Amino acid sequence: MGVRTDLALEAQEMYSQNTAKADKIDGVDVKVTKNEGITTTKIKITNKNGERALQKPIGTYVTIEAPDIKYSVEAYESACILLSEEIKSITHIDSKTKTLVVGLGNKRITPDALGPDVISKLMVTNHMKEHMKEYFDDDITSVCAIAPGVLGTTGMETAQIIKGVINQIHPDLVICVDALASRSLDRISTTIQLADTGINPGAGVDNSRARLDEESLGVKVIAIGVPTVVDAATIASDAIDTAFNDVEQQTPSDEKKNNLIKEALSKNIKTLMVTPKDIDTVIEKASKTVANGINMALHKNLTFEDIESFVG
Amino acid sequence: MGVRTDLALEAQEMYSQNTAKADKIDGVDVKVTKNEGITTTKIKITNKNGERALQKPIGTYVTIEAPDIKYSVEAYESACILLSEEIKSITHIDSKTKTLVVGLGNKRITPDALGPDVISKLMVTNHMKEHMKEYFDDDITSVCAIAPGVLGTTGMETAQIIKGVINQIHPDLVICVDALASRSLDRISTTIQLADTGINPGAGVDNSRARLDEESLGVKVIAIGVPTVVDAATIASDAIDTAFNDVEQQTPSDEKKNNLIKEALSKNIKTLMVTPKDIDTVIEKASKTVANGINMALHKNLTFEDIESFVG
Amino acid sequence: MGVRTDLALEAQEMYSQNTAKADKIDGVDVKVTKNEGITTTKIKITNKNGERALQKPIGTYVTIEAPDIKYSVEAYESACILLSEEIKSITHIDSKTKTLVVGLGNKRITPDALGPDVISKLMVTNHMKEHMKEYFDDDITSVCAIAPGVLGTTGMETAQIIKGVINQIHPDLVICVDALASRSLDRISTTIQLADTGINPGAGVDNSRARLDEESLGVKVIAIGVPTVVDAATIASDAIDTAFNDVEQQTPSDEKKNNLIKEALSKNIKTLMVTPKDIDTVIEKASKTVANGINMALHKNLTFEDIESFVG
Amino acid sequence: MGVRTDLALEAQEMYSQNTAKADKIDGVDVKVTKNEGITTTKIKITNKNGERALQKPIGTYVTIEAPDIKYSVEAYESACILLSEEIKSITHIDSKTKTLVVGLGNKRITPDALGPDVISKLMVTNHMKEHMKEYFDDDITSVCAIAPGVLGTTGMETAQIIKGVINQIHPDLVICVDALASRSLDRISTTIQLADTGINPGAGVDNSRARLDEESLGVKVIAIGVPTVVDAATIASDAIDTAFNDVEQQTPSDEKKNNLIKEALSKNIKTLMVTPKDIDTVIEKASKTVANGINMALHKNLTFEDIESFVG
Repeated sequence: MGVRTDLALEAQEMYSQNTAKADKIDGVDVKVTKNEGITTTKIKITNKNGERALQKPIGTYVTIEAPDIKYSVEAYESACILLSEEIKSITHIDSKTKTLVVGLGNKRITPDALGPDVISKLMVTNHMKEHMKEYFDDDITSVCAIAPGVLGTTGMETAQIIKGVINQIHPDLVICVDALASRSLDRISTTIQLADTGINPGAGVDNSRARLDEESLGVKVIAIGVPTVVDAATIASDAIDTAFNDVEQQTPSDEKKNNLIKEALSKNIKTLMVTPKDIDTVIEKASKTVANGINMALHKNLTFEDIESFVG
Repeated sequence: MGVRTDLALEAQEMYSQNTAKADKIDGVDVKVTKNEGITTTKIKITNKNGERALQKPIGTYVTIEAPDIKYSVEAYESACILLSEEIKSITHIDSKTKTLVVGLGNKRITPDALGPDVISKLMVTNHMKEHMKEYFDDDITSVCAIAPGVLGTTGMETAQIIKGVINQIHPDLVICVDALASRSLDRISTTIQLADTGINPGAGVDNSRARLDEESLGVKVIAIGVPTVVDAATIASDAIDTAFNDVEQQTPSDEKKNNLIKEALSKNIKTLMVTPKDIDTVIEKASKTVANGINMALHKNLTFEDIESFVG
Repeated sequence: MGVRTDLALEAQEMYSQNTAKADKIDGVDVKVTKNEGITTTKIKITNKNGERALQKPIGTYVTIEAPDIKYSVEAYESACILLSEEIKSITHIDSKTKTLVVGLGNKRITPDALGPDVISKLMVTNHMKEHMKEYFDDDITSVCAIAPGVLGTTGMETAQIIKGVINQIHPDLVICVDALASRSLDRISTTIQLADTGINPGAGVDNSRARLDEESLGVKVIAIGVPTVVDAATIASDAIDTAFNDVEQQTPSDEKKNNLIKEALSKNIKTLMVTPKDIDTVIEKASKTVANGINMALHKNLTFEDIESFVG
Repeated sequence: MGVRTDLALEAQEMYSQNTAKADKIDGVDVKVTKNEGITTTKIKITNKNGERALQKPIGTYVTIEAPDIKYSVEAYESACILLSEEIKSITHIDSKTKTLVVGLGNKRITPDALGPDVISKLMVTNHMKEHMKEYFDDDITSVCAIAPGVLGTTGMETAQIIKGVINQIHPDLVICVDALASRSLDRISTTIQLADTGINPGAGVDNSRARLDEESLGVKVIAIGVPTVVDAATIASDAIDTAFNDVEQQTPSDEKKNNLIKEALSKNIKTLMVTPKDIDTVIEKASKTVANGINMALHKNLTFEDIESFVG
C-alpha cells in the first residue's frame, strides 16, 4: 500500500473512510475522551478481523493528541501526566517492577533521534537501587535504559541486542520508544501513541527492523511513539487525489493510485522521508514529554516539578 | 512558483523544458565538461534576460555532479581536487589572501548541518599566522571560520553577525557554505554548486535569510552548496504531472498545477522538507568533500593525503 | 603565582590567610548573607589597593555558594531565583533593555562547555520582538545569544567577534558566561560568581583570551561564571604544603613553593586541568541554573515553572 | 597505592625504579623495537611473580609510543599501520573471523569518549555480509560494534550488556577500546597499548567497572587503550617527591608518601582527573589512529588511503 501509518488511530480512520462505513468495525473498539484540549482515543483490536482491518496486531492502542503542547506550558504538563496515567493503566507497575527502557532510532538523524533523546532524560535507578537499597523509597522503581543504535552502525539487529540484554538483566517490563510515521501532517509531534503490542516493522525512518514484542522477547513490552515523519508516498497520494478530483470529480482506485505513486517517485519511493523544517524543536519537546511521562509512571511519588528539575 | 531549486543548472533545465526551446538562452552561457565520471557544468548569467529566465543573479555558477562519490574513493578524491581547482579559477587567491569561511545552517537539523560540519573540518590558520609567522609557508594562507547559528537560536540575522565580524577581521574573501534544495531527488548529496554571486534567499531548510553578497558585505563572496533536501511541493508537482498524464495525456498548465499543489499540501506547504533516510552519511561525505576542496584551494602545497589526514 | 583562582571570594580568602590579617582589607568591602543553605558573598573592590590585593579590577563580585544544588530540587530552585535577583540588582534592566548573551568556551571540551550550553537553554526573543511586537508583553525583553567558538577553531579572537556583533546589534547590556578555575576543589560546580567587571584573562581552560569589558566593548558587561576546573599547580601546591608541614612543621615561602611547583610539573604546568570525573552532570546542572537565572532576570513575569518547562 | 597506571610499560618502569633493580624481572619479558621515531615495547608477563610485580594479569602487552603523531602525517600513518600489524600478530584473524568491537566510556566526558568515538569511525560490515554475501571479498571480515554507555546512564553493568550481546551474536573475537590513565603526563595521547588480557578495573575516568576478559565472556578478548588522563594522586606524588628532595635530599617512603597524598587531596582523591587542556584534539587524533588500525587489521586488502577516505 502506498500510504502507510504507524498510528492505529489513523489506520482506523482510513479504513472507515475507504469503506464508507460508520465507525464500528467488528473486532475494533474505539473510545474517545476529551479533556482540557487533549483528545485521548483508546482503540482495542480484539480479533483477527480487527487485525486485518487496521493492519495492526491484537492489543490496546492509546493515542494522546495535544495540539497545544508546542506553545503552552499547561498543555505540556497535562500531556506528561496523562501519559504517565495511561502507562500505569496499560500495564501493572508495583514497587518490585524492574523496567528496561529502549530508545530505538539513530541519534544522528534529527527526526529519528526521539528514542535516544528520551533515554538521555530518564531517571535511571537500577544500579543505585542495587548498591544503596536503604536510600530508596519503594515508590522509586528499578529502571535501566539503553539506546542500542541502528543496524547500519552496529552491524547487528536491534532485536538481538535487546534480547541479549534482557537475558542478563531479567526486567519485568520493557518500554520501547520510537519515532513513528503518520499519515497526516498535522499529527507530527503533537500526538503520542502508547501500545501494549510492542514494536512491529513500521513506516518510520528505519522500517526494516525486526519485531520487539512479548512473543519475541519473553517479557511484557509496551511501545511509546511520536510521529516525526510522513511518507513521501503520502504527499504524492494527496496530490494525485487532488488532481483526480479536479479532472474527474472522484479519486482513483487504490490500484491505479498505487501505480501512479510508484511512477511519480520511481526508485526514490523507499528512501525519502518528509519532515517539518523545525524538527529540532519538535524532537526536543516530544522527548521531554515522553521522558517525563515514563519518569512519573515509574517513580510514583515524584511531582511534575521534581521531574522537570531532573529532566533536561 | 511551486517547484523551487537552488541550482542554476536545474533552473536552466526547467526553463528550457518549459519553453520547449533548445539550450541557448539569451544571457545564459552553458559549458559542459565530462571527466572520469564527473560532469562539470559552468553556467554564466550575463544579462538581465538571463537573470529573469533562471531567477538567479548575474554571475558564474559551476556545478560538479559526481554520482559515484558515495561509493568510490577515487570519485571522492577527484571531486575534492576538482572543487579546489574551480575555487581557484572563480576567484583570485595568493599568499596574502585572508579568507573567512562561514558555515550557514542549523547543526541540530541533520540536512541543514552541512555548513557547521564543514567549518569543523577546516584547517584554520589565521591565529597561528599572526603569532608564529616564521613557521608558515607562503602557500598556507590565512583562514578564519565561523558557524554563526540560525535566527531562531541567536535572535540575530546571520547577515548582521557576518557583517560585524567582517568589519573587525577585514578578510579579502568570504566563502559561504550552505545546504541547498534541488528540484531532482537524484541530485541530493552528489552535486556541488559553486557560485561567485554569494548567497540569496533560497529554497533550503531555512529560506528566510537575508542576502550575503559582495554588495551587502563589501567583500568578494563565493558560495558553495550541496543539495540535501527537496521541496515537498516538488513531490506534489511530480505526482500531479503523473496523474494528468494518465488521465489527459498532458501535464496541466503552470497556474492550474500551482493551485493543485497548494490544495494538496494546504497550510503545510512551507513547513516541510523531503530528505533521504540516510541523510547522516550523506552529510558526512558531502561535508568532507567541501571542506577538503576548500582546504586544498587555500593551502596550495598540501596533497590530498595531507588534507585527508587532517580532516575528520 | 603558582595557585590561581577566578573567584574574587577565594582571592580575598587567600590574601587574608597569607597576610595573617583579619578580614578587612583597605579597598575591599565584604558582606556575607546566609539563607536556606545558600551563602551569598558580595565583595566590592573600591580602590587601587583592593585591586592589587585581590588581583581583580575595581567592581562588584557576588558569589553564590549552594552546596546542595546537585541533590536538592529546592536548593536548585533557590539558586536560580537568587541568581536572577542578583543580576537585576547588579545592573538596570527595564522593558526596553536589549541584551546580548555570549557563551564563551569550547563546547567539545566538557569542563569548558558551560558557556555554549547556557546559550542553548536561553529564551531568545530579539527576532520575535522585532517581527511580532504586538504579541510580546513589556516584561519579555529583547534577548540575543551567541556562542562564538574558541580561537583554535575560528582563528579569530573572541573579543573581535563580539565587538563586531555589538557594532551591528547595539545591545544595552552584554552578559558573558564562562567556565572558571577555582582554588578549592569543593567549590567546583556548586558556586556561581556574578561580576560587573566583565571577563578578564583567567585561569580557566583557555586562559589566553582578551578582555571583554565595558572599556573594550563600549557597553555594560556583566560576567557569570561557574568553577569547573582547578589548576594542576593547585594540587601540587597543596601537596608541597602537606610535605613541608610534615617535615618542617611549616609551609615553604611563596618563592620556594613556586619553584618547587615548576619543578614538579615541569613543561606541563600550563597545559593541564584538574576536573571532576562526573563533569558531565556537573555542567548539565550548572548550565541549567545559570540559564534559568538569566531567563528569569530578563523575562520578569515568568515563573520558575514556566522557565523550567522551556529550558532543557 | 597512590600512583596508578593502566600501562604495563609504566608498571614495569616503576617496579624497576622502586626496587633499584636492572630491567629483568622474573616472569616479565621485555622487548623494545624502534623504527622511524616510533618505539614499540612488547612486555610478556609469564608467571605469578610477574603478575605481582606489575599488578597486571599474565599476558602480552604491546605499547606503541609515537610522540610525533600529533604533528606529522607520516607518524600518524606509521602508527595506524603498526597497530594493525600488532593486532594481527597478537590474535588470529582469517576470512571467517567475526569481531565485536566494544567502545567503553562516556561520550559526554571528553577524555572518556575515546571508545565511543572509535566505534563511530569503524567499517561495520556484519549486516552487509549476512545479506549481500556475494559482494564481499573474503578479506573484508564480519565486524559488529557497540558503545554500550556507562553505568550511570544505563543502570546496568557494561559487562552484563556485552555478555548478553555476545550470547546472541557469537563473535570469535572481542576488541575492547577504552581511555586509560597513565603515570606520566608525557604519555597522554601519544601512546597506544594493546593487550590480549582484556579489560580489568583500571585507573581511568570510570574505574569501577567489572572485568571484560576471556574468562568472564567466554571468547578471546583483546584490549586497545590510549592514556587520556593522569590520576590527581600522581601530581600530588610528584610534588611531594620534589619537596622531600629539596628538604631532605631523598624521597619519602611509600607508606609516608601515600599518607601525605591522602592528606593533601582529602576526600577528592578518587573523584578527580587530570587531563590536557587540548583534550578535544587529542581524542580526535587518537580515535582516528585506533579506528584505522582496527579497520586495516580486520579488512586486510584495504590501503591506508581507502581507510582514511572512509573514516571521519
